[in-house]
Amino acid sequence: MKIFCSKDGLLSGVNAVQRAVSNKNPLPVLQGILIQAENQSLQFAATDLEMGIRCDVPAQIIEEGTMVVPAKLFTEVVRKLPDTTITLEERDQKIIISYYQSEIVLNGYDPEEFPLLPDLIEPLSFTLPTVIFKNMIRQTIFSCAAEENRPVFNGILLQIEGSNIRLVATDTHRLAYVISEITNTGDSRFSGIIPSKTLSEIYRLLRDEDEVLTISHSNNQVVFQFGTIFLISRLIEGQFPNYKQVIPQACETKVYLSVREFLDAVERASLLSRDKSSANIVRINVVDNELRIDQTSELGKISEQIGIEMDGKEVRIAFNAKFLIDALKVIDSEQILFELSGPFSPGVMRPMDNPNYIYLVLPVRTS
Amino acid sequence: MKIFCSKDGLLSGVNAVQRAVSNKNPLPVLQGILIQAENQSLQFAATDLEMGIRCDVPAQIIEEGTMVVPAKLFTEVVRKLPDTTITLEERDQKIIISYYQSEIVLNGYDPEEFPLLPDLIEPLSFTLPTVIFKNMIRQTIFSCAAEENRPVFNGILLQIEGSNIRLVATDTHRLAYVISEITNTGDSRFSGIIPSKTLSEIYRLLRDEDEVLTISHSNNQVVFQFGTIFLISRLIEGQFPNYKQVIPQACETKVYLSVREFLDAVERASLLSRDKSSANIVRINVVDNELRIDQTSELGKISEQIGIEMDGKEVRIAFNAKFLIDALKVIDSEQILFELSGPFSPGVMRPMDNPNYIYLVLPVRTS
Repeated sequence: MKIFCSKDGLLSGVNAVQRAVSNKNPLPVLQGILIQAENQSLQFAATDLEMGIRCDVPAQIIEEGTMVVPAKLFTEVVRKLPDTTITLEERDQKIIISYYQSEIVLNGYDPEEFPLLPDLIEPLSFTLPTVIFKNMIRQTIFSCAAEENRPVFNGILLQIEGSNIRLVATDTHRLAYVISEITNTGDSRFSGIIPSKTLSEIYRLLRDEDEVLTISHSNNQVVFQFGTIFLISRLIEGQFPNYKQVIPQACETKVYLSVREFLDAVERASLLSRDKSSANIVRINVVDNELRIDQTSELGKISEQIGIEMDGKEVRIAFNAKFLIDALKVIDSEQILFELSGPFSPGVMRPMDNPNYIYLVLPVRTS
Repeated sequence: MKIFCSKDGLLSGVNAVQRAVSNKNPLPVLQGILIQAENQSLQFAATDLEMGIRCDVPAQIIEEGTMVVPAKLFTEVVRKLPDTTITLEERDQKIIISYYQSEIVLNGYDPEEFPLLPDLIEPLSFTLPTVIFKNMIRQTIFSCAAEENRPVFNGILLQIEGSNIRLVATDTHRLAYVISEITNTGDSRFSGIIPSKTLSEIYRLLRDEDEVLTISHSNNQVVFQFGTIFLISRLIEGQFPNYKQVIPQACETKVYLSVREFLDAVERASLLSRDKSSANIVRINVVDNELRIDQTSELGKISEQIGIEMDGKEVRIAFNAKFLIDALKVIDSEQILFELSGPFSPGVMRPMDNPNYIYLVLPVRTS
């Protein structure tokens, strides 16, 4: 194998696939990146057997072939290469990188040992603009569970039904739900739990330019394609909770308030609740067209007062500050409707100008 | 005490002084920031008893007085305040921060316990443009020792003599020297070892705008003043090595080469020398108007070749890669003269268009 490629081309290839490189897999070849020169195209690929990424890079192919480079070292070397045309060759599993009068030789892996990324068999496909999907990920992914004891909560439910695409994430303490429209000509459906690692990787790789994202699936795998990138991921097995049952249809108190003012007040209150006893809880009191936060800790005390509009009963309720802050940071609207039903029922945030997003958060019982 | 101040004003005050706040001193009040309202000015101050910083902030003083706020919490709270006029009051060592209809009360410290930052008695002063001093710090500070067993090597020698100002830093393996001209009307002199922490703090606080820096000293202390900032520091006691004796006056080989090409080649070579055996050493071979780096490790091998101009003998020499990289990154010239005298004598880098900077680095003896 022998190719000519720009430094930037090599860099874009390794950057695209490097997060799929396995750091802890016992199979050494998975610490490598497969580079394949075929049909006048140069393709980079990496996989940790859960997720695989392929990326095409423009290059001049002199001799077709395949090599597996050590991912970490190759990436570091490519970053330090001069901005010129680089020659990349493979001879007996040695990787030869040359530029000007200089040359670097790295030990490669045996390409025969590198697992193939499967192609889907008779996949069903859907398309949507990448910017929409990127924002859907941003508005839900923080609600996934971090602990790994119950796999379905480490994933995000992706559902495509008619002309709707939905993402739902929950860690059982809060739930984020977002829905968008897509062009879906058939009446095909999809429902699967995508590992949050896969979606955070897609979020990182999606540029802010408007491109088309194609989502395909068959059996237990799903593929995301955009630009020159192909990302395949397993699905998480198991039963996702029935989110429709969880979201309350009615409420006792409707609070209309500014996202910015609420976020700032909760953030300040959370600074004052960080001692051992109170575990970052904010106590909210909705009364008389005001939302008040009054709390005292070893560090001092805070009395916040925000003007709101309200319908229904007065209510006192306490939340984990982080669960409010996380959601208020990703809501793009200026105002939300915050629905409450007494101190023991979940609160529900709905952006005022966007019926497509819902965030549900359980209260904390305090004495 | 009671004052009105903008959020940004408070923030600039705490940001200026916070690095002088003591984290490990047993005296609790040193974890605080002193805020003093006097003569229509608001002054922030903090000290760890080695270094002290004061900063003036515009504010409207309603009632004069003094408070000591808990530095970390107050800074976090100020960052989250709304962009409006903030009222700051002190009553019985309680700090009251109010804005709109909201209020935060923090526990303060007793201002009587806060140590005064001393004023210098009959100081001698020098002035120079801040941008010059900032660059002098950048070009030397990395050569200080990180270990704390020999205090003089944790500092930088500052010398003012006639119209010259000099900074010299060394960790005994390498030495960085920079000299600039200053307007000094008298024939007063200064020579003292400034803690590197003090100079890195000055580097952080100096803006890139052209302001005047005043350096004053008396007894064992030195003061740096610029903008609204006053920074006082102790000097390090002890004898700084005689740098004039260390810098060789002659050499056997003169190598003229591109900073960029040399830096890139050394960085690449250092990637290939990171296994257990070779401790990040680069082996340089100057021969026949070429500088070559040829080395092999468990990771692979590299052969770098850079076109140079040379006078004098051929030479083979090895250096710690980091010591070359550190200096090549702060040299602003395109070309350097690298003076060598065989494999056991120090190498000396001099920027081609700037006689005011010298970097000396000891070689590594290799088998």
